[in-house]
Amino acid sequence: MAMRRLKLVGWGYEDDEISDAERQMVTSRMHERFGGEFDVRKAPGADAVELHAPRLAVPVELSAYATDARQDRLLHTYGKSYPDYARQFLGDYRNAPDIVAYVRDEADIAAVYDHAAKVNAAVIPFGGGTSVCGGVEPVVGGAFNGAISLDLTRLDRIVEVDKTSRAARIQGGIRVPAMEDQLKSHGLTLRHFPQSMELATLGGMIATRSGGHFATLYTHIDDLVESLRTVTPSGVIESRRLPGSGAGPSPDRMMIGSEGALGIITEAWVRLQARPAFRAGTAVLFDDVYKAAEAVRVISQAWLFPANVRLLDAREASNNGFGDGRQSVVVLAFENADHPVDAWMDRALAITRDFGGSFDRDVAKSGSGHRAGAAEAWRNAFIRMPYYKKTIVEMGIITDTFETAITWERFPAFYRAIIAATEEACLKATGQKGSVSCRFTHSYPDGPAPYFSFQAKGRHGALAEQWLEIKSRALDAVIAHGGTVTHHHAVGRDHMPWYNRQRPDLFGSALQGAKDRLDPKGILNPGVLLPARN
Amino acid sequence: MAMRRLKLVGWGYEDDEISDAERQMVTSRMHERFGGEFDVRKAPGADAVELHAPRLAVPVELSAYATDARQDRLLHTYGKSYPDYARQFLGDYRNAPDIVAYVRDEADIAAVYDHAAKVNAAVIPFGGGTSVCGGVEPVVGGAFNGAISLDLTRLDRIVEVDKTSRAARIQGGIRVPAMEDQLKSHGLTLRHFPQSMELATLGGMIATRSGGHFATLYTHIDDLVESLRTVTPSGVIESRRLPGSGAGPSPDRMMIGSEGALGIITEAWVRLQARPAFRAGTAVLFDDVYKAAEAVRVISQAWLFPANVRLLDAREASNNGFGDGRQSVVVLAFENADHPVDAWMDRALAITRDFGGSFDRDVAKSGSGHRAGAAEAWRNAFIRMPYYKKTIVEMGIITDTFETAITWERFPAFYRAIIAATEEACLKATGQKGSVSCRFTHSYPDGPAPYFSFQAKGRHGALAEQWLEIKSRALDAVIAHGGTVTHHHAVGRDHMPWYNRQRPDLFGSALQGAKDRLDPKGILNPGVLLPARN
Repeated sequence: MAMRRLKLVGWGYEDDEISDAERQMVTSRMHERFGGEFDVRKAPGADAVELHAPRLAVPVELSAYATDARQDRLLHTYGKSYPDYARQFLGDYRNAPDIVAYVRDEADIAAVYDHAAKVNAAVIPFGGGTSVCGGVEPVVGGAFNGAISLDLTRLDRIVEVDKTSRAARIQGGIRVPAMEDQLKSHGLTLRHFPQSMELATLGGMIATRSGGHFATLYTHIDDLVESLRTVTPSGVIESRRLPGSGAGPSPDRMMIGSEGALGIITEAWVRLQARPAFRAGTAVLFDDVYKAAEAVRVISQAWLFPANVRLLDAREASNNGFGDGRQSVVVLAFENADHPVDAWMDRALAITRDFGGSFDRDVAKSGSGHRAGAAEAWRNAFIRMPYYKKTIVEMGIITDTFETAITWERFPAFYRAIIAATEEACLKATGQKGSVSCRFTHSYPDGPAPYFSFQAKGRHGALAEQWLEIKSRALDAVIAHGGTVTHHHAVGRDHMPWYNRQRPDLFGSALQGAKDRLDPKGILNPGVLLPARN
Repeated sequence: MAMRRLKLVGWGYEDDEISDAERQMVTSRMHERFGGEFDVRKAPGADAVELHAPRLAVPVELSAYATDARQDRLLHTYGKSYPDYARQFLGDYRNAPDIVAYVRDEADIAAVYDHAAKVNAAVIPFGGGTSVCGGVEPVVGGAFNGAISLDLTRLDRIVEVDKTSRAARIQGGIRVPAMEDQLKSHGLTLRHFPQSMELATLGGMIATRSGGHFATLYTHIDDLVESLRTVTPSGVIESRRLPGSGAGPSPDRMMIGSEGALGIITEAWVRLQARPAFRAGTAVLFDDVYKAAEAVRVISQAWLFPANVRLLDAREASNNGFGDGRQSVVVLAFENADHPVDAWMDRALAITRDFGGSFDRDVAKSGSGHRAGAAEAWRNAFIRMPYYKKTIVEMGIITDTFETAITWERFPAFYRAIIAATEEACLKATGQKGSVSCRFTHSYPDGPAPYFSFQAKGRHGALAEQWLEIKSRALDAVIAHGGTVTHHHAVGRDHMPWYNRQRPDLFGSALQGAKDRLDPKGILNPGVLLPARN
């Protein structure tokens, strides 16, 4: 496992390419969606890429775990966002870090901080490297002499498991599959599965307020954190392990979502679940997307807490291979480790019926049959989606997503406005009609978290610019209509202009005041959440 | 309503004294619990109290809403803690504020800040005045020329109700009963009912991370906050109204629990519930308190989310008038606005049976009968409890509570250690055996929130000192055994020594960094959460 090499361009490991059938499926979908010819290009391989000489030398005190080797620097230049791919296709690695430090423990992290302060380098924490918003790219402004990418994946141990309280102390650099494998032997699971789960690390998920498996209740990882241990340039912050507390503002809530700008999360006690023993799931069809949204609202307000209650609008459903392109779908599922969930499912289905939903009750009971199969197919496609991106970029297609949240009373107008703005932006940027769709990833009593996907046929060489034009107009609309710039993808560098418009200025000032105490030289992930020093 | 005057000493309004029957009941309970004679004394009336002349003059720009009148200053000297009572009995009002400002709007708050900065006065936010930890007493250190108590109860409006998203924009100074009365006309409720609910204000509850009605899931008010508007000496922070967000550390979570040290919460959008239409409740008896705790643990881990699952140990049950003094009780209740809760109650009761609990299933179904009656009696006693404190102090009894949280695997040893330490402390401080009991106020998948009550027969004239000795030893044990100094009573001034031992130093530094930006002159509630400036 440890020897598996990550792809330079594309999702996952080098030994896990998409199958010919998958490539065929993706290609034909794009042909269906966009007419005409496609200018198919390949990304240059690592050997064909130009890379500047490192501006920093690896000092002897870091030499046991740090390197300036070409492949390591290339692999730590980008996350997995669309503009990351677009620039990889151009062979543009100008922002590569100068050193990659594969720290083994907290002492190594402190040593990297010390060295960075000494040579005036920025330090970029790098977990799974799955950021889709420029969170790990060393764009740090001109005030630094170089950048060190601090890779955390060697901090990969489960330190302690408490089966009684269902919690475990786990190192921040462990990837989700390794974590879940080990927890499984205790009959436990974190059961927090973002789309990036194959590569994502626990610390990275906490630092970015990741959104996981559960569509209601325990949506963000925030609520699964019992306590944190964080290493900052000023020292260690370790919070007490507590099921709940009212002793002042939560220390953990300042680190959760700090995106590597305040410190590095080296350990967390996280709240676990027993593995589910009872499940029920089905798909409910609606002719009217707003009626479907109403059903999701009422289910979300009924304290039923389904594991899944995801609305796919007609286009989104069709793009994911089910529905007829006119009907919206609500994927509905309950699960529990303790008891059968029929009473819960019965009530939720009754609510969908009140809003005109149609479903097959037998499917919901047994968890099998064609609609459950469709839901299952969607889930598989969801996990495989990141693998398809490279093929899509090869075809010169611009493809991206953005996710937000809005209260229910504003949802209908919001949905219409964001779809319209994004469609118009695709047309303006590419001269051709794009495809824009929406699903709910999570749902709360007071509002949904709508997740928008768009595709447009772009032009090789200009893909990053065309993407930026579309994304900017879309996010302008999100902010203007009251949404958040991100529900669970984080801020990174890409979302900063909109984050700044959304965040109360004075809270930004307070956050800077806190950072000045924890990171007095401003070396940690400069430009993320707070402006890089000049 | 607006003309009702608050008692100077004791809980509630002047026109709401406890009945003779209640006084009789409290008195005879104390006689049963402690033998011998009682030295019964009365607190001096307002006229008999010595009060220093105000050290600050009311300036003309605040004169429309500020006063230095004797009664207002006396009423804003204390909260409702035991040492507050003890010192009121001694006629000790040395820490009275010099001015009380009944602000009408945010402009008034800003004017008070400006004046305080000009004359070097401390500003103490005062909501319901129900602090049981010294949160509102103007003990501000020697660096200030005086103190202004900033009374928020005129900010008492519901500004906007959103029935679709079930949320409302509400001013911070509204008291719970007035808020619930108005929400009722919309069919909605915040349904957050701390024991202080009769007087508590919304902003005060948010600033202190209040714990409410629900024993599981939505325990703290934290989760009911959708957005906040806070006035700080540096300006206003207003967060966006969002059902969820992942855009950096939550701005709201920095203000929730800030106890008036960072700013004043003038408005909140809060998440509401529909009023419950279905309920089931009963009491389950256990011979073994640890088996009872195990049942609560398994129920809390089963995703059933009872509104109530409160364990009372044998002494606590008996003190509250039910049980035989040997059995522990779990008060168990479900409620829902949308659907019957029988499936939920059935499963929870089955779990209690697995741990040896005994109950009457018919009572649980109908919600009536003697055990449900006992639960109801306990709830009423719970709400009336604050009214009884004065009578108990009159008898020279020391009575207080402290509440904490601990993970399940440590609970049995923790419970034994805290009970033992508190019993020993009562004996040491008073020379006589005290009474110590415990209940769970809230319960989480990873641990309970145990709430300890103690009574000891003290000596008039020395009550505050004896109380401090007992409380200090009890909190020493809580901190030593891994608990939090407070689960929902807040930190205030009284808990600072233990808060400082529990809180990571570097987080304290970060919080100070944030405060320096929001309150650069350090005038806001000095000594709470952070040290007062010298």
